[in-house]
Amino acid sequence: MIFEFRILLLLCVDSHPHSLYTHALHLRQLNEFWTTPIFKAIMRGVNKKAVAVLLVVLPLIAMLINHWNSYTVTAIDVLQGPDSLKVLLEERTQNMGHKNDHIPYHIKDGMSKTLANNGCVCEGDKPGINFPFAQLLFPKVSATQLHASFQDSNLQNAREYRNKEYLSFRKRTYTAADSLIIAEANSPLQYPTQGVEVRPRRSILIPGLSLNQISKEGPYLVDLIATMGTFNTAALVNGVQVKGEGEMCISFMSTSLASLNKQLEFVTYTNTRFHPNTADVVQFKASIFQASFTIRIRHPPMPKFYNPGPKNGYNISTLVTIATKTFLRYDKLQDLITSIRQFYPTITIVIADDTEEPKPVTGPYIEHYIMPFGKGWFAGRNLAVSQVATKYVLWVDDDFIFTSSTKLEKMVDILDRTTLDLVGGAVREVTGYTATYRHTVSTDAGDEEGDCLHIRTGFHHVIEGFPNCVVADAVINFFMARTEKIRQVGFDPRLARSGHLGFFIDGLGSLHVGSCDDIIISHASKIKAMLPWGQSETDKVYSKFRYASTEETMNEYDLYYLKNHFKCVTSD
Amino acid sequence: MIFEFRILLLLCVDSHPHSLYTHALHLRQLNEFWTTPIFKAIMRGVNKKAVAVLLVVLPLIAMLINHWNSYTVTAIDVLQGPDSLKVLLEERTQNMGHKNDHIPYHIKDGMSKTLANNGCVCEGDKPGINFPFAQLLFPKVSATQLHASFQDSNLQNAREYRNKEYLSFRKRTYTAADSLIIAEANSPLQYPTQGVEVRPRRSILIPGLSLNQISKEGPYLVDLIATMGTFNTAALVNGVQVKGEGEMCISFMSTSLASLNKQLEFVTYTNTRFHPNTADVVQFKASIFQASFTIRIRHPPMPKFYNPGPKNGYNISTLVTIATKTFLRYDKLQDLITSIRQFYPTITIVIADDTEEPKPVTGPYIEHYIMPFGKGWFAGRNLAVSQVATKYVLWVDDDFIFTSSTKLEKMVDILDRTTLDLVGGAVREVTGYTATYRHTVSTDAGDEEGDCLHIRTGFHHVIEGFPNCVVADAVINFFMARTEKIRQVGFDPRLARSGHLGFFIDGLGSLHVGSCDDIIISHASKIKAMLPWGQSETDKVYSKFRYASTEETMNEYDLYYLKNHFKCVTSD
Repeated sequence: MIFEFRILLLLCVDSHPHSLYTHALHLRQLNEFWTTPIFKAIMRGVNKKAVAVLLVVLPLIAMLINHWNSYTVTAIDVLQGPDSLKVLLEERTQNMGHKNDHIPYHIKDGMSKTLANNGCVCEGDKPGINFPFAQLLFPKVSATQLHASFQDSNLQNAREYRNKEYLSFRKRTYTAADSLIIAEANSPLQYPTQGVEVRPRRSILIPGLSLNQISKEGPYLVDLIATMGTFNTAALVNGVQVKGEGEMCISFMSTSLASLNKQLEFVTYTNTRFHPNTADVVQFKASIFQASFTIRIRHPPMPKFYNPGPKNGYNISTLVTIATKTFLRYDKLQDLITSIRQFYPTITIVIADDTEEPKPVTGPYIEHYIMPFGKGWFAGRNLAVSQVATKYVLWVDDDFIFTSSTKLEKMVDILDRTTLDLVGGAVREVTGYTATYRHTVSTDAGDEEGDCLHIRTGFHHVIEGFPNCVVADAVINFFMARTEKIRQVGFDPRLARSGHLGFFIDGLGSLHVGSCDDIIISHASKIKAMLPWGQSETDKVYSKFRYASTEETMNEYDLYYLKNHFKCVTSD
Repeated sequence: MIFEFRILLLLCVDSHPHSLYTHALHLRQLNEFWTTPIFKAIMRGVNKKAVAVLLVVLPLIAMLINHWNSYTVTAIDVLQGPDSLKVLLEERTQNMGHKNDHIPYHIKDGMSKTLANNGCVCEGDKPGINFPFAQLLFPKVSATQLHASFQDSNLQNAREYRNKEYLSFRKRTYTAADSLIIAEANSPLQYPTQGVEVRPRRSILIPGLSLNQISKEGPYLVDLIATMGTFNTAALVNGVQVKGEGEMCISFMSTSLASLNKQLEFVTYTNTRFHPNTADVVQFKASIFQASFTIRIRHPPMPKFYNPGPKNGYNISTLVTIATKTFLRYDKLQDLITSIRQFYPTITIVIADDTEEPKPVTGPYIEHYIMPFGKGWFAGRNLAVSQVATKYVLWVDDDFIFTSSTKLEKMVDILDRTTLDLVGGAVREVTGYTATYRHTVSTDAGDEEGDCLHIRTGFHHVIEGFPNCVVADAVINFFMARTEKIRQVGFDPRLARSGHLGFFIDGLGSLHVGSCDDIIISHASKIKAMLPWGQSETDKVYSKFRYASTEETMNEYDLYYLKNHFKCVTSD
């Protein structure tokens, strides 16, 4: 009977996805108990059936009691976003000063366009003479309305869904901390306008509260009102009456201004209404004066560090993993691997492979992942990057060749020493032409139809201390990046083979992107493959897939519209 | 010759990773040009060699000119974080009011602990009587110092690296918008304290600036100073002198307060110092009065929507993908697939497989990914989720069985209608025991050694409108989540097979987590496998790997220390 009972216990224990630690602890406790003399004595002297019944019933009762005690019956509505707080703040802002409406002014030329007050307009440059090198010699900006690529019936559905998604997205993304608050002039209130933050369900001391009412006589009275937490006092000062400790509205009164202000140094705020990332609005009032400020309620950004391991000294293999995607071109892939091993013999290479009949790719520090046939470049990139266990990941195409100019140490150096998240290098063709594909990307707020996306060749500025490097928004597909940041952005598996820029558009605001032209990788020769007689069978099949576009795959412009909420793209 | 020239052009064009659109455009332009009568006439009448030379030289010259024009020589230091601005704000905050230091007060009992002013302490409950069901009946909180698991020599290295990483992380994560700013009382300045935001390299009108100096006589003078952008005016008002338009410091002077304030309604800020996500501090001064406020400089959060496709009506297969990881247990996996197909015949199932000798898993809407042998559960989860192309992803283990209680529509409903990012269900064992594994997770700020992590069974509150659902911080490994959010958090491939909670710790602050106990999946029977004679060969090999821990794999506690910067974990 003890044996079956042990099994029952183990089942209960094991079914909990506890960590190994807890699992081991339970087993150890059980094992110890069976062997104690106390247990053996009990077993000898007592009716075994009774004991067995008790051993089953008592724990159940105890657990039931425990459960009842921990359930609360507070139901909180998580459907509402911060809209109610937003309305509160907007009302106050609108009520401020329309006193100077009678003063005349004249608007400067060109200003309304700069400020794009009425939403962005989808315009490119006027088309000039159309001759072959026009676009290369004198790049003109072209503009594309994105909804135009949809059939009418699909467009209506797409629009409705987009609008719904956008409203839902804003509720999840924006908090009261994003709303406009204006500090009134000549107010006797002193208060914190930013920087007050509390972890969920925790308490903090509110800094900087004070009433500086020099002209008025006492008694002095102040109120504080919140909506997602309660106030209290950390200390008490004589001569101050406090009302509402532990509640959402607290008030302080005293005949001595100095005492009241001392008391105001000890006001605490406790978040009671749980949310992992939001903000509460606190109203601070004294007679006719009122001020609002927000308290952020959130877990602070979670660190996600990598440890290069117990080895001492610098080791690029513990810091960088090389990731690539291959399809059919095993010969080129093998050339790539050989060239890597010449310079980095122990660096891990992760290979995502969606060839129809995959061949094995083996070797030390090589990880080969087989995908369903033809899933595509983006799915492959997302897969490869999902398997990286080092701080940095280097992306290469399977037809690149490492040379003595491909110094990964330089890329590690710039990522270690700056706030960059990603740094691109340069790809050298067999002709000698070297490309960095630097682009800047900017956006303008539009209307409910979407925003405007602007893509230009070029970069923002040179990086001090790194004369060969610049800051941009998009770079060539030879880059090293912080693994955590690149995974946060991700490569969208909905794109099949084209749309290099889609990744960088997804990364806007998340990624700090750089580009150095002195870290060079070679691109395996394409000349043979371009000539009709130069293509091998493999090359022909490869080209057929590489440049095909099927119904199921989206192109990047579709995604800009459906995914990123743009209505227009301009590019040069 | 024309033929070789065409090849050369195509090489140049094709080597740019342009989108397919640009590529096609270039080819089309070239093809049109060769066939025009103009070209043919030119070719007939002119020395072909001269033309060829010109055709090569002219474009090169033009491109060179274009390049020179677009390069600026501004070098910006990206090594510095927002530290200089932080120092500026801290100085101002410290200089405010130490006027009431002489007033006595007495601190309330228990307050210092609540406020954790001195950093968190690593303490659990005092240990009681140690008997087998103690932990189950009366859960006590245990505390674990995390650095204790490291050897002394490794610990020193780990500590140094962690500290370096933490400083670097703070530079990348925090901006001037996080610093404490306190609004002074009785200041004649009116200004915006939050909510002012500009996209990088764009301009905005600054709202709410005003000088309300009622007592003083004119002339009235105000200054605005910024560090990452310049000021200008959108309109001009008579009687106001403006100095510094287009510069980082602008000043306005007028004898009429009303005119000055009208002019202040037209002040613009233009970000000139590029950064994808930062904040500038603006100082607003008038005589002895000064105020500071921040302007956020960033791309707003990028929407990443999914479109359920052109099909009309509700279709769970276009909204949800099922993801799972398998190792050896092909029979259980097949049972899972069969049970899914009973209810959801067309839903896509993504399977990550790290079996040593993988067998094919085929069928409609099944995607089978082969991994290197033994990569582990977390790597498998990260892989499977990286391949999902639908809005939601459902995670299941390969030994789960769908039943009529496994209503995915309910999970979709709660994710559609609330701000939740992830909702867990309940897993029913063959014994009838049903687990939801709800936990709450909280953290306290610590010191340079790290923070404190607190894990407790339980939940925060019930969700209004969904009486079977609650909000928690961690749930069981049967859940549906927004694909974008779950990918942003990610499953760390450094963890091999244990550490279920690690994912939820990584998600703190990012994920809004829920749990519903009315969406139930069954867990395939484990009883046979637990008995020594009941294990098949497969089961034995499976167990050997499942519960093994090797040198290369980390456990979750190591990661809490090295990755998430915690020094202590307490749990019940």
